[in-house]
Amino acid sequence: MSEPLVLWDLEVAPDWVDYNGHMNDAAYALVFSRAGDRWMERIGLDAETRQASGYTLFTLQIMLHYLNEAKLGAPLRVVGRLLEFDAKRARLWMEMRSPHDGPAVAATEQLYLSVHQGETTRSAPWRDETRALLEAMARDHAALPVPPQAGRGVSLKRG
Amino acid sequence: MSEPLVLWDLEVAPDWVDYNGHMNDAAYALVFSRAGDRWMERIGLDAETRQASGYTLFTLQIMLHYLNEAKLGAPLRVVGRLLEFDAKRARLWMEMRSPHDGPAVAATEQLYLSVHQGETTRSAPWRDETRALLEAMARDHAALPVPPQAGRGVSLKRG
Repeated sequence: MSEPLVLWDLEVAPDWVDYNGHMNDAAYALVFSRAGDRWMERIGLDAETRQASGYTLFTLQIMLHYLNEAKLGAPLRVVGRLLEFDAKRARLWMEMRSPHDGPAVAATEQLYLSVHQGETTRSAPWRDETRALLEAMARDHAALPVPPQAGRGVSLKRG
Repeated sequence: MSEPLVLWDLEVAPDWVDYNGHMNDAAYALVFSRAGDRWMERIGLDAETRQASGYTLFTLQIMLHYLNEAKLGAPLRVVGRLLEFDAKRARLWMEMRSPHDGPAVAATEQLYLSVHQGETTRSAPWRDETRALLEAMARDHAALPVPPQAGRGVSLKRG
């Protein structure tokens, strides 16, 4: 059975706790951003390859869903699954679980653009290696259920 | 003529620049979070009142739109406008402009919940003062155009 990728196991750090006594909303974005960097390693865009090839990802859009509080020291696990991709964009879903095998305390949907930074910085089709890895990942993740919140906008209406 | 609220003038800090040579996606979330704290002051939820009353905001949902790069030292201005609110939730739109009177480099839509932290932590209707300030703000912002991206989800389809 296919499973989401385990991207990062960590704990809520003291710097991330705000005046509400829980992890600040911006800290969730930080954790998901760092987890996204780890996902890049899974698609052939680790730091060394980025440096050598000039290929990288720019973020176009991020949705964050806050589902429960996370307190200082709480164990967190970030898992990810590819929703879809095209010639130069990819849509990634990530959940932050606490404890590691517990329920999601937050989820995010992120839209990335393949970019080449050379003499100019411009969007560019995936490198062949990245494209092959995305294809394999999409096949592996096709059996996972699509999260009900995927694609949804911000609304005062529930459900 | 009504205008969005000017919430914060700042510059891109060195800590916020990542391996792509521009402000990292998580740093935008940090800036919008701090700007949201400044917006709380406009609705009677400054730090002192939060401490004394036990009322605060929890974030339920955040959408971030990345429109252009922001480089080290670039001047940024965050402006905000209330989209709508109900008995205990509010939807705020913010734009980050660079330079101060320039085009938006990013925008965000944030959904907040009114919470009372006492013996228990639970959602609670707005304090009277906050409700009155939200009503006045909504009247003032009603004439502003609704941003076309408001309410929209993450999608590979453009437009």
